[in-house]
Amino acid sequence: MLNHWFRASLSLLTTIVLMFGVLVLGIMGFDHSPAWAINSIPDLPFPKVEKPEQILGPAGEIFTFATCNRGTQGFTLADAQIPAGAGPLPHIHHHTNEWFWTPQGGLELFQSVQEYPDLNHPATDEDAGRAKVYTVDTVPNQIVYGPKNRVHGFTNITDETRPLTFIWLQDSSSPQYPYGDGGIREYFQDVGILITDANNLPPITDQAKEEFVTHAPQYGINQSDYFLKYVAEVDHHPPLILAKGSNDPDLMAIIDTIQAFNQGDTSVSCF
Amino acid sequence: MLNHWFRASLSLLTTIVLMFGVLVLGIMGFDHSPAWAINSIPDLPFPKVEKPEQILGPAGEIFTFATCNRGTQGFTLADAQIPAGAGPLPHIHHHTNEWFWTPQGGLELFQSVQEYPDLNHPATDEDAGRAKVYTVDTVPNQIVYGPKNRVHGFTNITDETRPLTFIWLQDSSSPQYPYGDGGIREYFQDVGILITDANNLPPITDQAKEEFVTHAPQYGINQSDYFLKYVAEVDHHPPLILAKGSNDPDLMAIIDTIQAFNQGDTSVSCF
Repeated sequence: MLNHWFRASLSLLTTIVLMFGVLVLGIMGFDHSPAWAINSIPDLPFPKVEKPEQILGPAGEIFTFATCNRGTQGFTLADAQIPAGAGPLPHIHHHTNEWFWTPQGGLELFQSVQEYPDLNHPATDEDAGRAKVYTVDTVPNQIVYGPKNRVHGFTNITDETRPLTFIWLQDSSSPQYPYGDGGIREYFQDVGILITDANNLPPITDQAKEEFVTHAPQYGINQSDYFLKYVAEVDHHPPLILAKGSNDPDLMAIIDTIQAFNQGDTSVSCF
Repeated sequence: MLNHWFRASLSLLTTIVLMFGVLVLGIMGFDHSPAWAINSIPDLPFPKVEKPEQILGPAGEIFTFATCNRGTQGFTLADAQIPAGAGPLPHIHHHTNEWFWTPQGGLELFQSVQEYPDLNHPATDEDAGRAKVYTVDTVPNQIVYGPKNRVHGFTNITDETRPLTFIWLQDSSSPQYPYGDGGIREYFQDVGILITDANNLPPITDQAKEEFVTHAPQYGINQSDYFLKYVAEVDHHPPLILAKGSNDPDLMAIIDTIQAFNQGDTSVSCF
């Protein structure tokens, strides 16, 4: 009988020690979700339009635009050059879903899990509450999905200019904008500065910087003007809902449309 | 004997259950330190100098300066008006220890625990590594201490101008600057814009914004030019080492010096 109790105690002790071990590992951080799943594509086709429009952004970014329409699908792409330290402050798109493709990496993207679906109630303390955003330091050829209604943005944290290709896909909930793209190109045309000579860039005016923020709501965007306006916390460890976030069906449909246009498919219009 | 083993097992089980409880509470977040201990003072005397110097900062902040010296003690104060959304981006002081007094609250301060003691190795990814900073949303009359070598800064997260009084105390390790204050007033004189008519503020030039960053190292400061340059993470829950951080002996000595000057003590010089 003594032996029985001894064995029972030993067994209990062993179980407890194992459970402790699991807990301790958890406390030490092993319960962290894996890093943001890295989705990667070697190349992203760009629509072969005549003279793609070039616009200078408020932080010296050079955007080269193309917009495509095919049936109800509408999207705008921009091949962009992002200067060291530049990138948009935290903002929210309500009419578009977005992809970021980083051919050389070096851009730190950030995004909230929390959604802010109301354009009139942005992520401020006085309104819908500030967001916790999760960062990802992109690697070359990485592509990251950022659906509508989330606080997001990025920074070039290297000390040299880096390329970034954006895709903004019109959401089905978007009102109709002239280019059928959820208003993004219209926004940049309104607030950016048209580049007519890429070797002789226009100066960035204070007015352009200000309108980048104040005109944004006309295009379904809440754009903050300082980092902590929409952001209360920044975390390096994205939860699974972000780590697994992607929208490959829409991305594949976009690539298909671009390739169709580039192959002369007249059901596609790009400009 | 059976009874003995039974009791021993029960006792072991009880101990384990209690330890589990502690761990589970810890996991649920009860191990978080309390909010940053709130140190508060109802008033901070300002040296009654003739015509205190006024300087305009890079984000439209109006600084009203006074500097005092008494023996080896040297410090600069500034009563400042911080516009909505304004505040310095993350930076590191190497020659001064600082207090922030927020008569009306509304300013979100942030600070790292990690120290960056080398002016030539700031908190960038390529150098000493970026910091995790902890935020505190100040309440009226709160005073927060920020010792040298930490990444810190603040933002006015309200939508109206808020007052803030700074004290920068020369650290014993500082080289000698003309005013014996660790170089802070000299820095603002160099990079800020002198206000000669408070009702007619001078324009803030791009040059002033740029020099605020590029001239900083001459005054023992690493000043970043975008939020995420020195910061990798932002957390709302300061650890005890920050929650308990203060330097009341030096603060009391500073207040004593100001009061002595205001009462005509000729061993104190303020200007």
